[in-house]
Amino acid sequence: MIGEIIAIGDELTSGRILNSTSSFAAGHLFAAGHEIIAMSTVGDTADMIGEALQKALNRADFVIVTGGLGATTDDLTNEAVSNALDRPSTFRPEIIEKLRSLGHTLSECPSDGNDGKHSLEKLAWLPEGAQVLKPEAKMAGYLLVHDKKPIFFLPGVPYEMRELMLDSVLPRLSDWDGQSARQVLQKIYKVFGQSEMEINRKLAGLEQRDPGIRVGYYPVFPEVHVSMTVTALDPKEADSLFRQCDADIQSILNPFIYGSDEETMEAVVGKLLIDHNKRLAVAESCTGGLVAHRITRVPGSSLYFLGGIVAYSNLLKESLLGVDTDILQEHGAVSAQTAGAMAEGGRRVTGADICVSVTGIAGPEGGSPEKPVGTLYMGLSGSEETKDFLFEFSGKRWQIQSMAAQTALDLVRRKLLGL
Amino acid sequence: MIGEIIAIGDELTSGRILNSTSSFAAGHLFAAGHEIIAMSTVGDTADMIGEALQKALNRADFVIVTGGLGATTDDLTNEAVSNALDRPSTFRPEIIEKLRSLGHTLSECPSDGNDGKHSLEKLAWLPEGAQVLKPEAKMAGYLLVHDKKPIFFLPGVPYEMRELMLDSVLPRLSDWDGQSARQVLQKIYKVFGQSEMEINRKLAGLEQRDPGIRVGYYPVFPEVHVSMTVTALDPKEADSLFRQCDADIQSILNPFIYGSDEETMEAVVGKLLIDHNKRLAVAESCTGGLVAHRITRVPGSSLYFLGGIVAYSNLLKESLLGVDTDILQEHGAVSAQTAGAMAEGGRRVTGADICVSVTGIAGPEGGSPEKPVGTLYMGLSGSEETKDFLFEFSGKRWQIQSMAAQTALDLVRRKLLGL
Repeated sequence: MIGEIIAIGDELTSGRILNSTSSFAAGHLFAAGHEIIAMSTVGDTADMIGEALQKALNRADFVIVTGGLGATTDDLTNEAVSNALDRPSTFRPEIIEKLRSLGHTLSECPSDGNDGKHSLEKLAWLPEGAQVLKPEAKMAGYLLVHDKKPIFFLPGVPYEMRELMLDSVLPRLSDWDGQSARQVLQKIYKVFGQSEMEINRKLAGLEQRDPGIRVGYYPVFPEVHVSMTVTALDPKEADSLFRQCDADIQSILNPFIYGSDEETMEAVVGKLLIDHNKRLAVAESCTGGLVAHRITRVPGSSLYFLGGIVAYSNLLKESLLGVDTDILQEHGAVSAQTAGAMAEGGRRVTGADICVSVTGIAGPEGGSPEKPVGTLYMGLSGSEETKDFLFEFSGKRWQIQSMAAQTALDLVRRKLLGL
Repeated sequence: MIGEIIAIGDELTSGRILNSTSSFAAGHLFAAGHEIIAMSTVGDTADMIGEALQKALNRADFVIVTGGLGATTDDLTNEAVSNALDRPSTFRPEIIEKLRSLGHTLSECPSDGNDGKHSLEKLAWLPEGAQVLKPEAKMAGYLLVHDKKPIFFLPGVPYEMRELMLDSVLPRLSDWDGQSARQVLQKIYKVFGQSEMEINRKLAGLEQRDPGIRVGYYPVFPEVHVSMTVTALDPKEADSLFRQCDADIQSILNPFIYGSDEETMEAVVGKLLIDHNKRLAVAESCTGGLVAHRITRVPGSSLYFLGGIVAYSNLLKESLLGVDTDILQEHGAVSAQTAGAMAEGGRRVTGADICVSVTGIAGPEGGSPEKPVGTLYMGLSGSEETKDFLFEFSGKRWQIQSMAAQTALDLVRRKLLGL
């Protein structure tokens, strides 16, 4: 199907907030076989919202609208939609009920939707015909079918929008055009350690095999996500093509593929630690807690993560991790020797089976000709040995920290897999 | 002036590349006093490009177009512009000369612009009337004045586009409309600890004072950003209105405003630590390193941040932070007593002036009727005393961790400010 995406918000047209939601939607719609012919962004102005919507309905089969669904005075999407599509604002008592059940205090007698401005009641006034996408969830978002075309209204808040996009919009769209039920199979490969260009070069031949194969490349720093989509009229044909492509991609990109679809590096590392019955600790300097933070984003990580030491100062590297003063003086805090001693010390003081350490220069200050910004040493200590590693990254401070944390996790993954 | 921004490229409509150039342009145009009424993105399709351009010219005073100026087959902007505005493609020998001087080999006799597809010659065919923006530079980019309205065509490559935007577009636009120069002043308030609704209610009266005042509310979890924009014809009037509004917002939202414009909570805390000549450490359990990570995102944080201990397991709370076994057994790991002992222990083992601690239940598992998911205890230890705090958050694991880390930083901020 052909689609159009409209993002609403003064924070976008004033350049205050970078619009990442439209791109997220476009990427997933494209991967699911749809074509986006235009994306537009308008401010919180009812006329502009209405105009953009009318234009989109004239040329697309479906429309995604994000933003302006909140309860504050500058949220005008519902009002604009009611006017533009001639669908009167309708009170939805079930939304008020939900808000009450979530602990909000609301008056019994609703005023008119557009008057009850500074109030959560506003959330209960939707254009006539609106089908709430996730009635049980806290977030706004609804579907309106207009002239037989689906229009999805989603929150502008990125994580809410993403959840609804994946859980509601994509499944509904795939059912929409039922008569020409093409079989679409898709897999996302999470790749780390290869650039988009390198991966592209390696997989360039795949698409030429069959017109039903589509490969997409999405750099999501510091990783690259590769989507493989197979489309065919016959389910068996699709399945066979999919299996063949999947096997080929796995063999071409291994060991850089760490997971697929919704998996994250930290969750993959966690599963491996559970499988191998090992407990992990971290000793960080320039990543400043980012490695520990990523590990503990995973629910249940206390099963395999004991803790970490952020030894930002040299004194703490000595007192908390037991790194020798001699090592620090002779080789410096950013050295293979210090990285190794930090990993060993971290393992010793925490009693973990494995400890990974990171020390380096994240910048923008602190670099030297011998050890420029981006120089990173890591240590990996297990019961049998301690190894050290040197990496040279580039970019801004946050990019170097992010690359370093991801690399530290990948070292643990590769160790557990024996790679 | 009222402007519109058009970005061109299949890599944008397929979601493969996040469009950051439009946002960059919008931010700088807004700051220079212009208003962007719409931003649109279309693929590399001549019809769509022409249509978007026509529409923009109908409703805006100026248009910025980015992308599609290159030499490959999918770069169609010049062709689309020639057709849409009825300006024949014209050969520009000086561009060929420049390309030669840059070391490119080109044939003597130019073919037609639209035929010489895979060739750099394509770059020398521009719509009639195009004024090259930086004739000496390697990059493409030109100005076309159509129906007295300026249209700037810029490369899609972000750093090239940015350079031309700052060096050419903004200066030319500021001279364009000399007579009706409106004064626009803006400030962003970074607010933590109040919901978007509460802030909206408190500031609702501001906009009614003067039609030149505009207030925007942007939840950026776990904060809310509030923008105040003042527009007036007279600079003095704008300035006076701005000062008055600024003072009012400060007094209404204080102490929840932690900073303004580009400031972050962690950078504000860092500045305060430097001002007070204090050094900080952290002792984290359920935030798992997030507090330390946020502090060390700031360049130069080693000046005031010594390090942190992520004591995820109870054993490490004892061995690394010296929390009494009795306290853990009697009150549990998630308790005011443990939080206090963690903060004290963290201060002692690191030698810091201040230590903040976090212990709690981030979920989704681990809650109980007495201590449900979202129960957070924090400790704040200084040279004179150690205090503990109880918070009850809700949401997903990452939201609870994020709220907790931000709150921990805010505790340090408030302590240093004596709030």
